Amino acid sequence: MPTDRQLKMGFMLHGVGTGWGDWRHPDAQPNASTNFSYYKQQATIAEKAKFDFLFVADSVFITAKSSPHYLNRFEPLTILSALAGATSHIGLVATVTVSYSEPFNIARQFASLDHISGGRAGWNVVTSWLEGSAANFSKSSHLAHDTRYRLAAEYLDVVQGLWDSWEDDALVHDKASGVFLDPAKLHELNHHGEFFQVKGPLNIARSRQGQPVIFQAGASEDGKNFAASRADAIFAGQETFEEAQAYYHDVKQRASGFGRNPDQLLVLPGIRPVIGSTDEEAERKFQEFTDLTSIENALSLLGRPFNDYDFSQHDLDAAFPDIAEHGANSNQSQSHRILALARRDNLTLREVARRFATPRTDFIGAPEKVADAFETWFINRAADGFVFNVSLPKELEVFADNVVPILQKRGLYRSEYEAETFRGNLGIPVPPNRYAAPLTRVAAE
Amino acid sequence: MPTDRQLKMGFMLHGVGTGWGDWRHPDAQPNASTNFSYYKQQATIAEKAKFDFLFVADSVFITAKSSPHYLNRFEPLTILSALAGATSHIGLVATVTVSYSEPFNIARQFASLDHISGGRAGWNVVTSWLEGSAANFSKSSHLAHDTRYRLAAEYLDVVQGLWDSWEDDALVHDKASGVFLDPAKLHELNHHGEFFQVKGPLNIARSRQGQPVIFQAGASEDGKNFAASRADAIFAGQETFEEAQAYYHDVKQRASGFGRNPDQLLVLPGIRPVIGSTDEEAERKFQEFTDLTSIENALSLLGRPFNDYDFSQHDLDAAFPDIAEHGANSNQSQSHRILALARRDNLTLREVARRFATPRTDFIGAPEKVADAFETWFINRAADGFVFNVSLPKELEVFADNVVPILQKRGLYRSEYEAETFRGNLGIPVPPNRYAAPLTRVAAE
Repeated sequence: MPTDRQLKMGFMLHGVGTGWGDWRHPDAQPNASTNFSYYKQQATIAEKAKFDFLFVADSVFITAKSSPHYLNRFEPLTILSALAGATSHIGLVATVTVSYSEPFNIARQFASLDHISGGRAGWNVVTSWLEGSAANFSKSSHLAHDTRYRLAAEYLDVVQGLWDSWEDDALVHDKASGVFLDPAKLHELNHHGEFFQVKGPLNIARSRQGQPVIFQAGASEDGKNFAASRADAIFAGQETFEEAQAYYHDVKQRASGFGRNPDQLLVLPGIRPVIGSTDEEAERKFQEFTDLTSIENALSLLGRPFNDYDFSQHDLDAAFPDIAEHGANSNQSQSHRILALARRDNLTLREVARRFATPRTDFIGAPEKVADAFETWFINRAADGFVFNVSLPKELEVFADNVVPILQKRGLYRSEYEAETFRGNLGIPVPPNRYAAPLTRVAAE
Repeated sequence: MPTDRQLKMGFMLHGVGTGWGDWRHPDAQPNASTNFSYYKQQATIAEKAKFDFLFVADSVFITAKSSPHYLNRFEPLTILSALAGATSHIGLVATVTVSYSEPFNIARQFASLDHISGGRAGWNVVTSWLEGSAANFSKSSHLAHDTRYRLAAEYLDVVQGLWDSWEDDALVHDKASGVFLDPAKLHELNHHGEFFQVKGPLNIARSRQGQPVIFQAGASEDGKNFAASRADAIFAGQETFEEAQAYYHDVKQRASGFGRNPDQLLVLPGIRPVIGSTDEEAERKFQEFTDLTSIENALSLLGRPFNDYDFSQHDLDAAFPDIAEHGANSNQSQSHRILALARRDNLTLREVARRFATPRTDFIGAPEKVADAFETWFINRAADGFVFNVSLPKELEVFADNVVPILQKRGLYRSEYEAETFRGNLGIPVPPNRYAAPLTRVAAE
């Protein structure tokens, strides 16, 4: 079924999988999370498969009890800068929290990555939700949920304002006259807000794509409104087709409500496909991953979005405990979803923990079946594309070799990059500089 | 004259030179400061010439009146991460201020760069001295000079403490038992200080070189003591042989006073050689660079270390004005040197401005003459090596092709890298992890 839309695909780069036990698989590389050769190899495969972007998740707080994929890993902006030099077309999306950093520094580092990569940077804007994070940043307590989003909005105002410091023709570079820049085209921001006072200008110009692409992952009310009003793409987390479709419809409608063209807000659910030569082989592989995570680890992982709540005090085989109040200041997008799921399907604690540790999705099966799931979600507007996650290093190659050709043949996915910038490939316009004269702005649009 | 010491050489990577007018030269690339291909090419030449490290300077405040080399440029950690992937042996030293960043974030980004590069990261620890910087970071005023250094010492305590979070054998990676790490070898820092409260642990392990190499550039009393007690290498700024020798002797003695082996504190003056096929040609080239900077720009540049003091209000051809008090909260290492120079040589304002804009050094001449200057400074302990700065892109190649072979022939400089890590090449030991058992510590030393 040909369509004028094309699937947008991100690859989540990480070392030891995203499940607690993935690293234990015979084919896993336990040291991969700080192994640059491994990252470079994965990035190269993803680019050969014409993925739109690499995505690096993040967190800023661990304990010895954290899951292996949080424990020892690269920092997103540095690893993506390193990969910028090893790639040529693929976008580079770094997760960076607004809770514990300075907007001037973050604006600069993203702008720098954007220049290094020739216009391929993206920023997944997150607010830190782990209570413990504050203790790594000289803070006595974490911000409340609504305050976090107010701060995030202001932080993004500052960063995007700084990114416009230089009009695109500010650099004159006239050797004869000695005029390096046109001072009228270099702008102070002079931001005075509730949380930040930032004068500017930024000490780096705009890149080929104008500004880095903005990602967000909001699922709470605040989060959805923030994403719908400010993001270019949403990293969504719904598990079932129905949930994903409802979420898609919801945020697109919110985007329209904010006066935006909803086609310019891409909704990209995170998925972890398991591909086999037959459906049965894929099921066996899925079961293998599930079995690698002990129930103790699954409970611990489940506790994370609930402020590291200790679920082991409850009966594993009784109904999921009523702990809504523990989620009040935690990762609401995840904890709400878990609570809703448990209630809807009347699940026991053990069942919830297992499903959270190794989510079962539509994307398990032989290549044709997985391709069908991609098509169903995409055509029926549960997704504009996906953020692709693997449990094992070789799974990306399996997908690239077996599923990508089917999607290409069906006209759903590109065979060549359309552009050299990230915005160009996503089909998102270059934002005009806020300071540019109207005529220049029209020309830029 | 053979010696058991070897010259340690750094190359200062920048785009448009370090003088105000360098970009105006016919051979200059005015857009080089955000041109990754250019940076990669320079890094490759420096590595081929067996330089110990690339060095990226930094600042976090500009105005439209700033010199071109401050205006539009890469952020150090991102560009060096990108270059890590394009190089294999050369060290990567990023300048990052402690005044406006979180130690947890900076510890992480350097540790990440250290892993990406296989143990080649270095940090030039600076305190911001431009009054205007505070306005980019939601601060109403800048810290006083002595407070800045107290904060820097505590900041470095935190960062180095976080870098030791993981003992070198903390990662067990036993797939069969499911033990990913030994929790007894992952350490919280629990730092409670005057400026910072940081719990830890850091979410990335130590690299092959243990910890990134520490650079410092102090010239004030506070600065010299900080460097002598904490740094592995000093980026020094003395212009004449006599000054450099006195400074060398001073900081080495201070290092001994702090109970350190002075050989493990490298003193590396910054130099900007100008090489010609004859001494006369080199002199002509030097004059060309001098002439490219207008007196207005030279005055403006001179004002920077004095809190952007407006020197244009003074008579150009009268004695250098008495403005010591304006330097009180500025870059004391630079302003003190300028004042001392002006008084010693009884210079006019015009002469000081010219000399500051385009410093005249011993390193101007035909290759043999420049090599002689290297040897004189090195053998007579005015330097353990240099941070090499060029005004034009091709000057690095001129040095590599013409001066390096002479230094190698004289036995002063390596022909091959001794090691794969930065510490290995500098001859600085891997610091033992502070938490490791004594026996392990001895083994590591």
